Amino acid sequence: MAGKKRAGAIPPELEQLRESIDNIDAALIHLLAERFRCTRQVGELKAVRGLPPADPGRERVMIKRLKALAKGAKLDPEFAEKFLNFIIAEVIRHHESIRNGGRHPASSGPRKRASSNR
Amino acid sequence: MAGKKRAGAIPPELEQLRESIDNIDAALIHLLAERFRCTRQVGELKAVRGLPPADPGRERVMIKRLKALAKGAKLDPEFAEKFLNFIIAEVIRHHESIRNGGRHPASSGPRKRASSNR
Repeated sequence: MAGKKRAGAIPPELEQLRESIDNIDAALIHLLAERFRCTRQVGELKAVRGLPPADPGRERVMIKRLKALAKGAKLDPEFAEKFLNFIIAEVIRHHESIRNGGRHPASSGPRKRASSNR
Repeated sequence: MAGKKRAGAIPPELEQLRESIDNIDAALIHLLAERFRCTRQVGELKAVRGLPPADPGRERVMIKRLKALAKGAKLDPEFAEKFLNFIIAEVIRHHESIRNGGRHPASSGPRKRASSNR
């Protein structure tokens, strides 16, 4: 029941903040799922067209743009860059998995940082 | 100008996908900014109330929930867990910065994985 209290219950303000965090996390997960749907298509398109997987110029533009967006949102721009690199590492893992004949990435496996199909 | 072509221009399908990726990335950056606003408040609230920063039970619940959400969205659940750990590492860095007298996190510094104020 709403408002019901337990002994040692967390303060209502903390509970409110956690509910917001949980909502934001759900949104983040769904956006990430959609982003990987896009990058999978990019990988497949590049493979079909014989385009090179790497595009360092595109990556530089993305990082610059995200850092500017981060500044505007008062998010540490260095964190924005780390975040993009974290995502790209996963994209590379997906592409390696596809190249190795798997449709979905394995939950473990070697990973390396390189420019690929963002 | 929209639709203008360059020699060696990327295929329109790739350009469309990249525009979607750019939109998703902007949304991700803004959601992350909002998430860190929430966790900063959590950190301040816990400091004022004298609550312990760590809450391993809360973390376990978050991971389980995000993995289930990831499955529903066809995102690798292991990636969802890694993503949460990546974010939490940054939250800890923010809290360490606040504890050391800084309002905003430095762009570099030691980092360790621990339970803290999610």
